[in-house]
Amino acid sequence: MDLAGVFIFGLSGGTLAVRHRLDLFGVLVLSMAAALAGGVARDLLLGAAPPATFRDDRYLWAALASGLAAFFFHRPILRLVKPVMVLDAAGLGLFTVAGCSKALDYGMEPLPAVLLAVITACGGGVLRDLLVTEIPRVLREEIYAVAALLGAVIVVAGGRLGLPDLPVAIAAVAATFALRVVSVVRGWSAPRAPGS
Amino acid sequence: MDLAGVFIFGLSGGTLAVRHRLDLFGVLVLSMAAALAGGVARDLLLGAAPPATFRDDRYLWAALASGLAAFFFHRPILRLVKPVMVLDAAGLGLFTVAGCSKALDYGMEPLPAVLLAVITACGGGVLRDLLVTEIPRVLREEIYAVAALLGAVIVVAGGRLGLPDLPVAIAAVAATFALRVVSVVRGWSAPRAPGS
Amino acid sequence: MDLAGVFIFGLSGGTLAVRHRLDLFGVLVLSMAAALAGGVARDLLLGAAPPATFRDDRYLWAALASGLAAFFFHRPILRLVKPVMVLDAAGLGLFTVAGCSKALDYGMEPLPAVLLAVITACGGGVLRDLLVTEIPRVLREEIYAVAALLGAVIVVAGGRLGLPDLPVAIAAVAATFALRVVSVVRGWSAPRAPGS
Repeated sequence: MDLAGVFIFGLSGGTLAVRHRLDLFGVLVLSMAAALAGGVARDLLLGAAPPATFRDDRYLWAALASGLAAFFFHRPILRLVKPVMVLDAAGLGLFTVAGCSKALDYGMEPLPAVLLAVITACGGGVLRDLLVTEIPRVLREEIYAVAALLGAVIVVAGGRLGLPDLPVAIAAVAATFALRVVSVVRGWSAPRAPGS
Repeated sequence: MDLAGVFIFGLSGGTLAVRHRLDLFGVLVLSMAAALAGGVARDLLLGAAPPATFRDDRYLWAALASGLAAFFFHRPILRLVKPVMVLDAAGLGLFTVAGCSKALDYGMEPLPAVLLAVITACGGGVLRDLLVTEIPRVLREEIYAVAALLGAVIVVAGGRLGLPDLPVAIAAVAATFALRVVSVVRGWSAPRAPGS
Repeated sequence: MDLAGVFIFGLSGGTLAVRHRLDLFGVLVLSMAAALAGGVARDLLLGAAPPATFRDDRYLWAALASGLAAFFFHRPILRLVKPVMVLDAAGLGLFTVAGCSKALDYGMEPLPAVLLAVITACGGGVLRDLLVTEIPRVLREEIYAVAALLGAVIVVAGGRLGLPDLPVAIAAVAATFALRVVSVVRGWSAPRAPGS
């Protein structure tokens, strides 16, 4: 499941790289950045270096595979906007819960744990966009990070209330996924500053 | 005092986000980046992970509060250019001295300690500007980092001469503050390369 | 040798800063970023904080010296396009081998070790370009990272085959250097996505 999330996030980086006409190496770098940077940042911030990504190389292979897929099949992938969005929402939920759980395991307080969950889920997309000098999409539009926030709050609240881990994790992934998908379908977005 | 510095630095991120018409989430992210990234970078580079910011959540709350203040009150804040600049200069001095002292406590040599002080004081502003794809202001204009440099050199020199910590710290904050404020009032800037 | 690589990489940052009309402080920052960020990232990812750069200040002095050289002598340096490219290719080889060897010493598997070698060799250039909001050159053009990749693969393969370290290191530096120089002379570049 985790590896599927890495692969889907990697596709978002690879297809963006192709759109910017980067070469094969650039496509692979953007795939790896999008797929792995969030988890790497979380592990560095937790003091868990070297990051899991560098100790279990299946993550690297999944990210590389997504880069190659984006390089050779970017046209069909870009046509599948909706399925990719749905898979990406699933990846968002998985990354959020994985990030929040690991932060709590390392003894983080609730607020830092929520922040680390959002960094895990959104950090890869931020680096991906910065590498092609675009303002990160997560800062500009739509309910993306907010969906991660919701999932992280559910994990933290479940832990506080002493609920069993697995159902809480499933509920958090489902809530993140649902909020993200519904917000895209309905065209919801976060509020802007009054009078900006 | 420290928390006041975090709040002021956070305002600089939040108001920049409002000017770029980011949504509420983007405003909060830029506030947190501006307020916290310098200290986080310092702690990661010192090998002191998890960073203090993730262990004492008052810093996170102060950064979030500054983001909300920027979101709702950006107009009056942007009109208060001078008071904000003066408060920012005070924050610059506090961050510089805190960064340099912590680096020396961790056994850093003088030159790395000065560098870590400047990273602590200026790192948040760099990330803030990169997130909206502007060349960091600290690289382009005015005596900003140079003021931090002066404060850091005073802390290092005071330590070398065996002077008591508190007066040295006060002198360093005052020197950073004064150089920054005077340079803005007088319109000083750092030299550019000859014939560039 | 290592310090020569730092100096050369620093020149690439300093001259880019001068072209962007940054002030003296900005020139020094870009020199330090280009010269040191790759090694710093490698050490953070290996869990070897504080990074070597902060423990042995000769690296910082070499980076500062390259920044001052770029500030005062950017015109003659920019005229020496070919010698600078050749020296940069040598630096690329040295950084690659140093990064890969350190990663293997820390017990990394082959694929993560190769990735860390490329991060060591190319990370400084990426940060350098991001700080002036350009899409990193290493992502856009030419056989640069690919040359680092070749050198890293040679180091890993040599270790696997139990060959003696020094000849393998020399072969890896030479291969990186040669591929980089020949690719520039011949105008080779990495492939782009079909139909992009």
